[in-house]
Amino acid sequence: MLPTDFIGAPVDTLPTPCLTLDLPKLEANLRRMQAFARAKGKRLRPHAKSHKCSQLALRQIDLGAVGICAAKLSEAEKLHEAGLDNLMITGPIVGEEAYRRLVTLVARDASLIITLDNLEVAQAISQKMSEAGLTVNCLLDLNVGQQRTGVEPDQAVEFAGLLASLPGLQLVGMQAYAGHLQHIVSYEERGRLCRTALALAEGVFHQLHAHGLNIFTVGGTGSCPFDVEFSAVTEIQPGSYPLMDADYLAIEEPGERYALALTIQTTVLSANQPGFVTIDAGLKTIYRDGPAPLVIRTVPEVPALDGFAYDWFGDEYGRITLPQGVRLKPGDRVELSVSHCDPTVNLFDYFYVTENGLVREVWPIDLRGCSQ
Amino acid sequence: MLPTDFIGAPVDTLPTPCLTLDLPKLEANLRRMQAFARAKGKRLRPHAKSHKCSQLALRQIDLGAVGICAAKLSEAEKLHEAGLDNLMITGPIVGEEAYRRLVTLVARDASLIITLDNLEVAQAISQKMSEAGLTVNCLLDLNVGQQRTGVEPDQAVEFAGLLASLPGLQLVGMQAYAGHLQHIVSYEERGRLCRTALALAEGVFHQLHAHGLNIFTVGGTGSCPFDVEFSAVTEIQPGSYPLMDADYLAIEEPGERYALALTIQTTVLSANQPGFVTIDAGLKTIYRDGPAPLVIRTVPEVPALDGFAYDWFGDEYGRITLPQGVRLKPGDRVELSVSHCDPTVNLFDYFYVTENGLVREVWPIDLRGCSQ
Repeated sequence: MLPTDFIGAPVDTLPTPCLTLDLPKLEANLRRMQAFARAKGKRLRPHAKSHKCSQLALRQIDLGAVGICAAKLSEAEKLHEAGLDNLMITGPIVGEEAYRRLVTLVARDASLIITLDNLEVAQAISQKMSEAGLTVNCLLDLNVGQQRTGVEPDQAVEFAGLLASLPGLQLVGMQAYAGHLQHIVSYEERGRLCRTALALAEGVFHQLHAHGLNIFTVGGTGSCPFDVEFSAVTEIQPGSYPLMDADYLAIEEPGERYALALTIQTTVLSANQPGFVTIDAGLKTIYRDGPAPLVIRTVPEVPALDGFAYDWFGDEYGRITLPQGVRLKPGDRVELSVSHCDPTVNLFDYFYVTENGLVREVWPIDLRGCSQ
Repeated sequence: MLPTDFIGAPVDTLPTPCLTLDLPKLEANLRRMQAFARAKGKRLRPHAKSHKCSQLALRQIDLGAVGICAAKLSEAEKLHEAGLDNLMITGPIVGEEAYRRLVTLVARDASLIITLDNLEVAQAISQKMSEAGLTVNCLLDLNVGQQRTGVEPDQAVEFAGLLASLPGLQLVGMQAYAGHLQHIVSYEERGRLCRTALALAEGVFHQLHAHGLNIFTVGGTGSCPFDVEFSAVTEIQPGSYPLMDADYLAIEEPGERYALALTIQTTVLSANQPGFVTIDAGLKTIYRDGPAPLVIRTVPEVPALDGFAYDWFGDEYGRITLPQGVRLKPGDRVELSVSHCDPTVNLFDYFYVTENGLVREVWPIDLRGCSQ
């Protein structure tokens, strides 16, 4: 059977393990972030690295997003194929083969935006673009403490000047992404560190005013509340908010949380031991990164979910610890949150999109495996 | 460009991150395990859960393997599509949808072997097979201490009797897989625990002699040396030996090791910090499970690789710590072992098969994502 053959079927008849997206929760998350950005006067350009799904990205655009972010060139290529534009590639693009692909993509879509943090790379891309008679929009990538990519703040002015002088490049903005701060549990501590990073970045952005930059992009799902406080910030690029996971559910949030729209459906495979059962989802289907998945529902249902716990049990299997007195048998089902949505989504080929326990649609995870 | 467009190209021109398989090393590993099994008088039925590649499985058969193991029904379905038979599914198959697929597969390939550890599941499969006028070969799955699947040793005789009495099932053997012992670092300790587990399993196997079982299957890459000492064992099911990884390179091996045939090619993306650079392979391309990947080669080459170290740097990135005095710049390349081959292979769609630094073939990882 094809995944689409299950449209209209009850969730509990799906082959497992599989990813399910609760449509009302997803829709509420999408609308809420868009309304938040609008209320704060910021543009929203959501990151597709988390959901890896063009169809979901198109829905984000429908609701008012100005474009979509991609982590890698191959993600942007897939988004372009799906008809999306105003794409921003947030990571460096490096190497001869990648430059050739970049030229092809820019020739097809002049709205593409890339990020740069190295002069030799910028010169190489400048040369390729010039040879092709093209110009690519670029952002200066600023290191705000993660030390992963980006130029140092004290070198940003000089680097911006060099970028602006290179043919085939159009410097349009600055990126300051604080990936290391998104999952800090304490809301207060997260806020303090995000504000410190952003204040530094905003200072740099103001130093670049002569370049007439019109993009200052920052932020993930964890830092958004603080990022929007900065008046110079023009747009935010959160990725996880449509889906959510155990990782983001574990951080402090003073107000309402984004809803857990993404879950994984699993089946009990073996039940010969006291106190736990073995299910069909292990390392290969729930990426082990961050807090353990949460047990959301069992079939048959039990009065309370306290005392249930998931742990990985090898590549193919998971162990569900059972509360005192509860038994599950082979064929029973367990619905879980995932641990960290981004690398887990990347393990599957589609989302079953559900509503009221029925499959409504199947959305291909068409950016799955796009790591180049 | 398509992956096959790179056939004939130097490895160092491939888009990264990508998986490469060194053909001479792979071939040596395949021949060595086959010769080992033959010398010990055991059949070899390698596990495809590690390499997830029908083309590699076909090569294993060419060299003398009696069949191929699969962890999940969907893996067996793909192997069957690729023309393989004598498939053994080593994990439980549970649920209405899975039973329907199983009937379809058995109707097409009567040589399929499944494993059972639960009476209700066995009864359900028995009924489906009977209704379809089919019989499926089955193994009794024995728990030898991992507690994940399998019946308890003291219940094996009774369970075997029940299985033998069910129509549509043909009890042909027993499985005793000690997954929890494969990666014990100490060779002596691993040997002691494997021998204890196998002695228990062999005792149970002898108690089942009345059933005329002709399969007693055990073993992974780490336990093989000990498993073959047991005369009742008829076959072994190792998975990782063709590829190898940091995990298996970290366990003690008194003799020659299987060669590291599987590596990942990566590119330096950012180099603005002292002492380390950022590469394009993170959680989404090197599954974080087990020891850190090993740095195998850099381009340009450096005199010695001591002092290089990989660590994950988020979903998309890795950090390469550099030895004193060594510098790498964007566009330079780093070849690494992976941490744990099974879940990492499952992140990619193909292997570039290489020889002497050139791409020779491209093998689809056609079982990728087959977790159902």
